[in-house]
Amino acid sequence: MPLDDTWFTESLESQGSAFSLKIARKLHEEQSPFQRIEVYETTHWGRLLVLDGAVMLTQRDNFTYHEMMAHPVLFTHPNPRDVLIIGGGDCGMLREVLKHDSVRRAVQVDIDERVTRVAEQFFPELTEGIKDPRAQLLFEDGLRYLKEAPAASFDVIIVDSTDPVGPAAGLFGPEFMRDAYRALRLDGLIVQQSESPILHLDTILTELYAVMRDAGFAKVVTLTYPVVGYPSGWWSATMASKGADLTKFREQDALNKRFETHYYNAAIHRGALAVPEFCKKLFTDQ
Amino acid sequence: MPLDDTWFTESLESQGSAFSLKIARKLHEEQSPFQRIEVYETTHWGRLLVLDGAVMLTQRDNFTYHEMMAHPVLFTHPNPRDVLIIGGGDCGMLREVLKHDSVRRAVQVDIDERVTRVAEQFFPELTEGIKDPRAQLLFEDGLRYLKEAPAASFDVIIVDSTDPVGPAAGLFGPEFMRDAYRALRLDGLIVQQSESPILHLDTILTELYAVMRDAGFAKVVTLTYPVVGYPSGWWSATMASKGADLTKFREQDALNKRFETHYYNAAIHRGALAVPEFCKKLFTDQ
Repeated sequence: MPLDDTWFTESLESQGSAFSLKIARKLHEEQSPFQRIEVYETTHWGRLLVLDGAVMLTQRDNFTYHEMMAHPVLFTHPNPRDVLIIGGGDCGMLREVLKHDSVRRAVQVDIDERVTRVAEQFFPELTEGIKDPRAQLLFEDGLRYLKEAPAASFDVIIVDSTDPVGPAAGLFGPEFMRDAYRALRLDGLIVQQSESPILHLDTILTELYAVMRDAGFAKVVTLTYPVVGYPSGWWSATMASKGADLTKFREQDALNKRFETHYYNAAIHRGALAVPEFCKKLFTDQ
Repeated sequence: MPLDDTWFTESLESQGSAFSLKIARKLHEEQSPFQRIEVYETTHWGRLLVLDGAVMLTQRDNFTYHEMMAHPVLFTHPNPRDVLIIGGGDCGMLREVLKHDSVRRAVQVDIDERVTRVAEQFFPELTEGIKDPRAQLLFEDGLRYLKEAPAASFDVIIVDSTDPVGPAAGLFGPEFMRDAYRALRLDGLIVQQSESPILHLDTILTELYAVMRDAGFAKVVTLTYPVVGYPSGWWSATMASKGADLTKFREQDALNKRFETHYYNAAIHRGALAVPEFCKKLFTDQ
């Protein structure tokens, strides 16, 4: 019954669950100034990126996460031009953001340049956005960047962070969220990866709702979607606005989108807004 | 990295993935005439039922599967009175079916009585429907039962089977599906658990669509939903009709349902019908 060492396993002791992928070989391993970066060739999921022992993405399944973090918020904003990505060093989020013609500037701020360099080498399909003249890559602390950003300078902020421990802990905190509020324009939107609905409703999700509301965000909604490689296989994105109804989006534009997706479409967007019965106690905005 | 023997692991070699739950202790193990039945106490997921090494359900997460296999089809049928459950020996499906007041007869046909007896002992919350006078439990071969069932005798057939190998292989076959067609009334509906959209689209799901259409079913749709304990964490239910539009359902009745659910509601039902972009090549009915 135990798996041997031909498997990469991420175990979540706090939930008594674990997920494993069968490995063909290890392609890369390094300790950056911020975290341990590993790349594996799996037998069935393409290449696997691991940060500090946690699955970040596989080539086969990362599309659900990247598409559901990028397109719902960008089709909810009336005209997203200036977009800030905090984290996202693998550049998969940047690629999705740049699919929107309205975007004139996409700033990606990840503290760890090594993640991007490793992605360029092993996940070139994710990093194609780097060459886009609208893209600006910064390798620095996202918290400090946001604190120093001019007020009302962004339309959309996407927080593509790792779990709220280690380098990403501050990205779920009150100071970060207040700075995000300040850096967003009046119709600005923030979206934060918000872990698993079934594992983290009473903990991380509840805290995130409180932090967003305390920062001044008037509306908060959570979308749910599958991510095979993350704990429970079921993940969420929590979106906040200064007042705009987040259950409405540019549905016609989504229907007529001029770019390809593998998971996202207008019906999926609408469906992801549906609130499971057991989440209603928290996801009250709809 | 390898997990020790305090974990129960289901590995899917054909997909190079595995899912594990931390075990407190083994509560039961037997070899029935049909399969190996195991029950574990997990550390975080309540009790775990395993058949032939495959996770059937945990107490914590079985609600998504049972609710999404039962309520969408029952709210799509205009007036479900006679319901047949093939498989479903743990009685969790029966419990959900009996929540519908319109149901006057729910027949559960599982080949393995031992699954039901084990469920009564270790999962009593699932088996409460056994006492309901509308319930009829038969322990025999579902294929034979359906072959001998009078024509047009059921409104809804729910195929709550294990994976299409071993005892359940025939439940995905053409003969079974033709018998189901015959046993259903003109407005009758069948729903079949249809594995993972991301793992089985080109194999089991494609074959199931072909078998359903060959049997005479005019409309086929697939709903998707999370199931933590099944491979990939993302599962599906495929529904077929003799002509009725399966994208419409008794939405008002679902909104005003007089029973509790933990996942299902009208918005979730609508959302589960959304077809992911990569599934559009198969899920063409919508």
